[in-house]
Amino acid sequence: MIHVVSTGPGDLNCLSYEAVKAIEEATVVVGYKKYIELIRPMLKDQKVHFNGMKKEVERCRKALQLAKEGERVALVSGGDAGIYGMAGIMHELVLEDGDEVAIQSYPGITAAMAAASELGAPIVHDSVYISLSDLLTDIEVIKKRIHAAGIGDFITCIYNPKSKGRPYYIEMAKEILMEYKSPETAVGLVRNARRDNQEIILTDLKSMCDHTIDMSTVIIVGNKDTFIKKGKMITPRGYDKS
Amino acid sequence: MIHVVSTGPGDLNCLSYEAVKAIEEATVVVGYKKYIELIRPMLKDQKVHFNGMKKEVERCRKALQLAKEGERVALVSGGDAGIYGMAGIMHELVLEDGDEVAIQSYPGITAAMAAASELGAPIVHDSVYISLSDLLTDIEVIKKRIHAAGIGDFITCIYNPKSKGRPYYIEMAKEILMEYKSPETAVGLVRNARRDNQEIILTDLKSMCDHTIDMSTVIIVGNKDTFIKKGKMITPRGYDKS
Repeated sequence: MIHVVSTGPGDLNCLSYEAVKAIEEATVVVGYKKYIELIRPMLKDQKVHFNGMKKEVERCRKALQLAKEGERVALVSGGDAGIYGMAGIMHELVLEDGDEVAIQSYPGITAAMAAASELGAPIVHDSVYISLSDLLTDIEVIKKRIHAAGIGDFITCIYNPKSKGRPYYIEMAKEILMEYKSPETAVGLVRNARRDNQEIILTDLKSMCDHTIDMSTVIIVGNKDTFIKKGKMITPRGYDKS
Repeated sequence: MIHVVSTGPGDLNCLSYEAVKAIEEATVVVGYKKYIELIRPMLKDQKVHFNGMKKEVERCRKALQLAKEGERVALVSGGDAGIYGMAGIMHELVLEDGDEVAIQSYPGITAAMAAASELGAPIVHDSVYISLSDLLTDIEVIKKRIHAAGIGDFITCIYNPKSKGRPYYIEMAKEILMEYKSPETAVGLVRNARRDNQEIILTDLKSMCDHTIDMSTVIIVGNKDTFIKKGKMITPRGYDKS
């Protein structure tokens, strides 16, 4: 059996009870190098298989092979395994293989939610999640979705905003969103949410690219009502407080 | 101090370690009646204050008052407190009150992620979250956002899809999405995700309203690539499996 285990943003206190149990009871833990390092303090006698970025298919094939050999496999995935995580490709490979191996998934806390709880309460209203990585998605599709995020005045959570190979996409995203949203729209940048070196920037749409942004940054662009006050970023939901 | 604690979908195994600790260490627990019942097995000596739906502001005022009296308050919120939850209004009231009381937030597993892990892996690509409740949002804004979800071919997660007061909004949402998405688009309905009486329906966009849908249902409408196979709903992310 393969247990697809969400390990959350990084801080081990964010894992769910069942996720911890699934890792503890596994005979083998499989994952991306960086996520294995984050959960290393939890590991005891489990065998460990890890590899690098862009090796997702290989990693899942290994998990499948080990499960078929009788191992109890925990395939770990940062954040929530079902949000840009390993749950999808693992299910696809098991289906292709003939569906003999069962998968059990354990949801977790995705980066945007960890970031939001550090910023205040920026995502309490309708929201979109867009990854700027074009490794698996055509850039025209990404652009279309950023336009749609603007059209709907959604709170817009941007994953994978910038890498060495595509430093300019975040500028592009900003320009598209500025077609619909005010330049003063509240923006929160959270780097390394719930890890030792967490950094928080509260800014606005026109200035957001003036700050350090990397692959470990989640960007939350507010809707028209979102505000920043006394160090908190908040989207009012419209409750009557009279 | 007020600890805004996300209690996840309902199953106590989904709570994070830090959320459990925050509830255990509280002197008073404040929350919506239904969520208090779900965490009742965890409670020991804590005082408990609960009230009903639409009493969110009152509940937060109570939490604030108790915190100012020196209590260690856990304000519990189902799912993730930052996603249509209590984190927003709590922050707003503390700001208005003069910001003397500190808030600590604990993120959690929102309903869509719990539902997704039960369905397979439907949300591994770009997604939107829309609530159909018009209590706090103008119906025209809701409609605009459903259109935008269609324009962007987002995986579309619908919260609060149907109540007695507005039984037809989900039909309206379906009609709008059908302007952009194929009638055969994969849809998953999960009622009472991760609770005793969980129900899962795999269907398609044209037929989704033929099934039981209520306020405890999360609806996940796929993008153009989402498929249902052998009881699983999966959105491929586009990995090269050759």
